[in-house]
Amino acid sequence: MLRDINLKRTVEKNEYRTRISELQLELGHCQREARARGIPIIIVFDGWDTAGKGELINELILALDPRGFSLYSPIKNNETDSSRPYLYQFWTKTPRNGLISLYEKSWYHQLILAKLNKTEDKRLPEYDDLISFERQLADAGNIIVKLFLHISKKEQQKRIEKLKDSPDTAWVVDKAMEKRHKNYEKLENLYDQMIELTDSDFAAWSIIEATDQRFAKLKIFSTIIAAVQRKLAQPTGTTPSLTISAETSSGNLNSSILERINLTECVLSREEYREKLEDNQKQLRQLQFKMASSKNPGIILYEGWDAAGKGGNIKRLVQAMDPRNYQVVPIAAPDSVEKAHHYLWRFWNHIPHDGFISILDRSWYGRVLVERVEGFCSESEWRRSFREINEMEKQLTDYGMLLVKFWLHVDPETQLMRFEERMQTPDKQWKITDEDWRNREKWSAYQDAVEEMLFRTSTSYAPWTVVESNDKLYARIKSQETVIKEMRSLLARRD
Amino acid sequence: MLRDINLKRTVEKNEYRTRISELQLELGHCQREARARGIPIIIVFDGWDTAGKGELINELILALDPRGFSLYSPIKNNETDSSRPYLYQFWTKTPRNGLISLYEKSWYHQLILAKLNKTEDKRLPEYDDLISFERQLADAGNIIVKLFLHISKKEQQKRIEKLKDSPDTAWVVDKAMEKRHKNYEKLENLYDQMIELTDSDFAAWSIIEATDQRFAKLKIFSTIIAAVQRKLAQPTGTTPSLTISAETSSGNLNSSILERINLTECVLSREEYREKLEDNQKQLRQLQFKMASSKNPGIILYEGWDAAGKGGNIKRLVQAMDPRNYQVVPIAAPDSVEKAHHYLWRFWNHIPHDGFISILDRSWYGRVLVERVEGFCSESEWRRSFREINEMEKQLTDYGMLLVKFWLHVDPETQLMRFEERMQTPDKQWKITDEDWRNREKWSAYQDAVEEMLFRTSTSYAPWTVVESNDKLYARIKSQETVIKEMRSLLARRD
Repeated sequence: MLRDINLKRTVEKNEYRTRISELQLELGHCQREARARGIPIIIVFDGWDTAGKGELINELILALDPRGFSLYSPIKNNETDSSRPYLYQFWTKTPRNGLISLYEKSWYHQLILAKLNKTEDKRLPEYDDLISFERQLADAGNIIVKLFLHISKKEQQKRIEKLKDSPDTAWVVDKAMEKRHKNYEKLENLYDQMIELTDSDFAAWSIIEATDQRFAKLKIFSTIIAAVQRKLAQPTGTTPSLTISAETSSGNLNSSILERINLTECVLSREEYREKLEDNQKQLRQLQFKMASSKNPGIILYEGWDAAGKGGNIKRLVQAMDPRNYQVVPIAAPDSVEKAHHYLWRFWNHIPHDGFISILDRSWYGRVLVERVEGFCSESEWRRSFREINEMEKQLTDYGMLLVKFWLHVDPETQLMRFEERMQTPDKQWKITDEDWRNREKWSAYQDAVEEMLFRTSTSYAPWTVVESNDKLYARIKSQETVIKEMRSLLARRD
Repeated sequence: MLRDINLKRTVEKNEYRTRISELQLELGHCQREARARGIPIIIVFDGWDTAGKGELINELILALDPRGFSLYSPIKNNETDSSRPYLYQFWTKTPRNGLISLYEKSWYHQLILAKLNKTEDKRLPEYDDLISFERQLADAGNIIVKLFLHISKKEQQKRIEKLKDSPDTAWVVDKAMEKRHKNYEKLENLYDQMIELTDSDFAAWSIIEATDQRFAKLKIFSTIIAAVQRKLAQPTGTTPSLTISAETSSGNLNSSILERINLTECVLSREEYREKLEDNQKQLRQLQFKMASSKNPGIILYEGWDAAGKGGNIKRLVQAMDPRNYQVVPIAAPDSVEKAHHYLWRFWNHIPHDGFISILDRSWYGRVLVERVEGFCSESEWRRSFREINEMEKQLTDYGMLLVKFWLHVDPETQLMRFEERMQTPDKQWKITDEDWRNREKWSAYQDAVEEMLFRTSTSYAPWTVVESNDKLYARIKSQETVIKEMRSLLARRD
């Protein structure tokens, strides 16, 4: 495919001057209009070495209002990024509504290099993961423009020679670049495959013929303008509507998982508890040490009814752990910056680095619980998120991350008892708010949501553990033993 | 000093149990009260290896509401931090109003190690820089608690042996730790010196006798509670008032620097401009390459009257640069998160990494310009900031950063002409707002502020360059030539 492209296209200087100033104005309009409409824009660059990326990007950003974009140019050997799942670096840089993120290197870049060099890197994703990433962003309203800067092998050779001729630029040409040049044909096949597999209606590739920089500049501007105008032509607020088939509606799922849970039988005496607690905490401390020293990261997330005892459960879980390698992350309602991003964005920001454990007190499941029940997002949005969440969890566990998910289950009577107790204890009154009472009114709507969540997101790679929590002592021990079991099993697999 | 401390203090288990639960409740109260009052709290740990820091911190954070604190535990070899001025890592982690930041390692830690190992590290600050850092935060209302965990050499030896005995913990004891243990006496002298030189009323050290963990826990809790209660006892909103001596009042400074500027003589013909522009941009590109390849960072900041031509000036400065190594950072009014921090916090977040150039379109000088004139901060706040800004700029230039500061100067007539032109050009109308017109009304108040700023913050290490900008062409060339000169001089010094 790439070899069929005519790389001889050029533009005269005078024609260029006229057209580029028109396009600059037009792009300025587009940026302001997209900003006003709150549409986020993602522009990604990929392509051959020496295709002139720097100059082309510079021309582009000089036409943009600098308050409205950011350019992401990865630092080599960046510990923050390289000790986390691959997509972390790209997710955390996605634009907030109305802004533009430019990626100087695409999420395909490292993948292609690994394929070329035949290096095994378990950290790298599959094309499917990258397509999911793009689809998730497009579904949330992002415009995605993927630009491939194309030059011929001969042209590349000429440019490499020229760079080497000047002492100011010779350092740019390293051995790796020369090797890539030598393997132009191999790379071309890999690029062809990449473009074929990852070209989609929601994130199409555009090939930019880059022999003539003037031609390339004009084409980049027009491609972006066209993509933005296409989006602007759609009426505001339309996201592709989802056809909901009968069997996915929640009616059929109602009360089938939770009703099997026997809350009354799961109890523990205080002596049993004390004994097990001490033993478990010792084990947890040792296992956390091992997770840290062998650089394994983990996420332990807690969901559950209000007053199910999440706080106390988490406290006992981490009591003997080393605080330098774990963090409890309470998830509250999203703030204004978080709201202006894809809802998964803020969780990507909390992904632990290798060797670190994040304990989430509430999580991304808020999307299908509170946001669903309270109507904070549309039905198509929360329905879509089952798949999005499963995709994210698959990526995390593929990376090797421990992922334990707890639903702390109590019955409404126990909740009421605890609410009343809190009201009567001066030091606990601040823990209970009007909102807790309001949520309680909606028990049955929440129950439907919980049922569907447990059903749709219990996967082989990230199953839910329902923790019977009428008896707090039992619940704490069960959570701890689950974490112990999962840590052991992960460490054994990774050994 | 440290050797005079009685390390044999202990607490009985039963007494401990009673007192710790009282203190936990008390600390909870303190946290909620400080949060309600918007008081930020900084808690810093330092002290001997094996003093039990992990366990002590864990006990502390388990008593805190996890929504209200964060623990900063530096990752080793973190590129993001280590390629920037030393205080970056600490500044960016300072708490927002009402929250708590715990630092598992203090800003003294690396300094002490370098002194012990006699390693030369130009990146490391002086004690004075750290005292400034603490004073700046304290002046802005932060509570700073510095805890030194103290054990004897004998006790440390015992603990190291114990760690080495278990295969789960033996990896913690590395050669560096053993060396530090051997040099206990040397380290003790260094710690004594550190405590003596950096103990202040706004950031006092507390020695925590850590032989007995129970004793240590109680003392840590009480120390923090006492510090918070002291602050809470002060009436809200009082910051130490500043006595303003006669000679620092702005009256005497009025119009002495700017009136010397000859705006009419500084002009350039279009031919001269074209010629110089091309040559300058070529040089800037080469110099940027050199700055990047030799890992020198730089900040070029632009202040100036509205419509003085900052945007166009910056555009021509960066036109030939490689966008992977520079960024234009527009500084707008602070958002709600930024407002809830020390005003310098958001600028520390923009400090470029080594080899990178940040061009600031407006800057921290907003404090002494718009914030002063519009009354967004108190007089004592903006007066204090002259010193704070000088301190920060000293730290940046000591680190080796290029720092160029431009004041783009036009006269009121030129500004009026440009405002009117913008109103009449459809593609420029969005650039002019009612606020611009309102600011213009306050020209003379702004002029006083500019005069005082230029006077107080033109230092030997970071002088201002006033750029005559009635003629935009002249202004662009002058800015470029200033940057070229400063880059050359920095590269020559650093060679």
